[in-house]
Amino acid sequence: MAKPNKRVYLDNNATTMLDPKAKELMDLYFCEKYGNPNSLHLFGTEIHSIIRESFNHLYEGINARDEDDIIITSCATESNNWVLKGVYFDILRFGEKNHIITTEVEHPAILSTCKFLEDLGVEVTYLPIGENGVLQVEALKSAITEKTALVSIMWANNETGIIFPLEEIGAICKQRGVLFHTDAVQAIGKIPVDVQKIQADFLSFSAHKFHGPKGIGGLYIRKGVELTPLFHGGEHMSGRRSGTLNVPYIVAMGEAMRQATLHLDFERNNVRRLRDKLEDELLKIEDVFVVGDRSLRVPNTILVSIRGVEGEAMLWDLNKYGIACSTGSACASEDLEANPVMTAIGADKELAHTAVRISLSRFNTEEEIDYTIDAFKKAIKRLRAISSSY
Amino acid sequence: MAKPNKRVYLDNNATTMLDPKAKELMDLYFCEKYGNPNSLHLFGTEIHSIIRESFNHLYEGINARDEDDIIITSCATESNNWVLKGVYFDILRFGEKNHIITTEVEHPAILSTCKFLEDLGVEVTYLPIGENGVLQVEALKSAITEKTALVSIMWANNETGIIFPLEEIGAICKQRGVLFHTDAVQAIGKIPVDVQKIQADFLSFSAHKFHGPKGIGGLYIRKGVELTPLFHGGEHMSGRRSGTLNVPYIVAMGEAMRQATLHLDFERNNVRRLRDKLEDELLKIEDVFVVGDRSLRVPNTILVSIRGVEGEAMLWDLNKYGIACSTGSACASEDLEANPVMTAIGADKELAHTAVRISLSRFNTEEEIDYTIDAFKKAIKRLRAISSSY
Ligand SMILES: Cc1ncc(COP(=O)(O)O)c(C=O)c1O
Ligand SMILES: Cc1ncc(COP(=O)(O)O)c(C=O)c1O
Repeated sequence: MAKPNKRVYLDNNATTMLDPKAKELMDLYFCEKYGNPNSLHLFGTEIHSIIRESFNHLYEGINARDEDDIIITSCATESNNWVLKGVYFDILRFGEKNHIITTEVEHPAILSTCKFLEDLGVEVTYLPIGENGVLQVEALKSAITEKTALVSIMWANNETGIIFPLEEIGAICKQRGVLFHTDAVQAIGKIPVDVQKIQADFLSFSAHKFHGPKGIGGLYIRKGVELTPLFHGGEHMSGRRSGTLNVPYIVAMGEAMRQATLHLDFERNNVRRLRDKLEDELLKIEDVFVVGDRSLRVPNTILVSIRGVEGEAMLWDLNKYGIACSTGSACASEDLEANPVMTAIGADKELAHTAVRISLSRFNTEEEIDYTIDAFKKAIKRLRAISSSY
Repeated sequence: MAKPNKRVYLDNNATTMLDPKAKELMDLYFCEKYGNPNSLHLFGTEIHSIIRESFNHLYEGINARDEDDIIITSCATESNNWVLKGVYFDILRFGEKNHIITTEVEHPAILSTCKFLEDLGVEVTYLPIGENGVLQVEALKSAITEKTALVSIMWANNETGIIFPLEEIGAICKQRGVLFHTDAVQAIGKIPVDVQKIQADFLSFSAHKFHGPKGIGGLYIRKGVELTPLFHGGEHMSGRRSGTLNVPYIVAMGEAMRQATLHLDFERNNVRRLRDKLEDELLKIEDVFVVGDRSLRVPNTILVSIRGVEGEAMLWDLNKYGIACSTGSACASEDLEANPVMTAIGADKELAHTAVRISLSRFNTEEEIDYTIDAFKKAIKRLRAISSSY
């Protein structure tokens, strides 16, 4: 296949471009100011102020209080594993409280870890989501028992973009005395994220989903909440997470968070407008469906189902136009499985295989969206013409 | 304090400068080729070849076979935690084999994790090292019992630079049917590292100790050896370690490993010559001691003890000259504790507090070393003049 001239990146829920401003800012810390911030000498101390500043951006970005902890991790997968396994060592393994509640549509970093804990004797409730992709708060209420130690529910779903009712969920957990964790990976940079409002004890994030670098993330831990470390060692980060600090990426993640916060209005208005334009045009085509009410979704995501067109076939056609979309989370995409969220919302098997996820960012242009609309139309036409099921 | 004009970095066992060649190579993967390699579209597939190439450098650098695994982690702290906790979940927790053997002078990433496992009921033997800093192989032999599941011994010590007899240790573990892990963080880039020769099952490394970036490392796992993941999730790295791949740092670590391997002769000859020159000059001063036989050490490290001079006081004076050394591992340095390895080799308390670690790299120049010799002489003179104990 000849390489297309055009490159349109619409897979921002899988990963994003590093914000060039973040890149520029971090560049100094590789070959010039390369000290270990724990060192006492000038190579160590000269980076203290930029680290402090970067942390400030993180604290402001999620409205953490000074007394709360934000611990740098290597990704949200680490943050999620840490919370679940930490709570296992702190509480669950003793058996008095041996129950976790989560949802059917969490990221594998939660779901696989829950499976692992089930093997160790932990009980896990996987709350179903309805046909519209929305979590029913009543179901959570009735699932909580005396035995429940932790509720872990994502802020926004990576496939559909649907936002879960976290304020209500947080209030319920608080009232029932249950620890509350949210995987906010797909919320940050897309909608306002305020840990106080949702009364979370733990919140996971990953920089590369909001134009920071891949391979760094964080875990917010409410003041006073204990959590056995996942990484024991040299007592970095007040002993909560050891390992030499990744200075350049901390700087880049801080700046990415700052930019994401500054651009929230842009996301709500401009990104949403482009997303809606694309979605409107797709919905004009016969037998095309989009999952979830638009008003309940983050501004950048469309999970679209095109009857008669295999998701993978669609991806290949789009790829020929230089357009990058996805059939589901990037981790699972090598397996060519049915989209798990489509399955969870009760879509029939045929339809579940037709899902294509389109996820925009603030770096997409109107011209790219127009080009994409055109490409979708052509591809659907071509593929339906050769489809055995349409 | 006025900022010194001169900057001489002699704390390379704490962290290193990123090799500019590695920086240059990785730069493309932040804002241009920023796709997720698990994605099916061109943004994902266009990075496959550079990732493959980078892995090849890692495999070659430690002489891993194609069938062995090298799994990317976020640092050696992660690799070390993973091995110990993985073996806990796979073997130790069932109690039939509930014994680990390590040494008194491992990095905290091993020692703190062992303490954690002790709380869970695991038995740990901490082998002592002798006065000369060398591990006695006989002590290991007699410590192994039917209950021993794992031996974890570092390749080279971070404080003294002393190399442990890993070939013998590996042979013993093999013969006794015990899993063998080595923390090779301080060996890579300094001496030839060959996992086959030492018959290791697991080997940890961290890129920032060999002029790669901070916040990425790896774990070698011998073909066919199982290890429960520390990060469950999206099935990256054949399900062994989930989390979106840190593409730029993988590229940089690969190149750093390649450069480190290419420069082994330079390390053995040129770096050693500069180290020896500095050491010879220091030893000419009265009441100055260096830990460990030079022939048993990696070529870049000196742990020097200057009677009558507090290590921290020395650091401050050197810092005024723009010279960066350390009183011990960077993780512990904020505590102003006695150097743990000095204590382990039986140094009296006073002497243990006088330790200064000097660690060179291939980027140091002869001129820097001459300047450092001069600065040491002046600082020792000044500090001894005001010392209460000298
Ligand atoms: C909702 C959600 N949680 C967690 C993750 C894991 O992020 P990472 O791969 O950076 O660990 C992702 C991204 O893949 C995600 O979409
Ligand atoms: C011997 C040894 N092991 C492990 C580590 C931990 O490396 P990192 O901080 O990159 O996880 C270090 C460095 O501090 C070390 O010297």
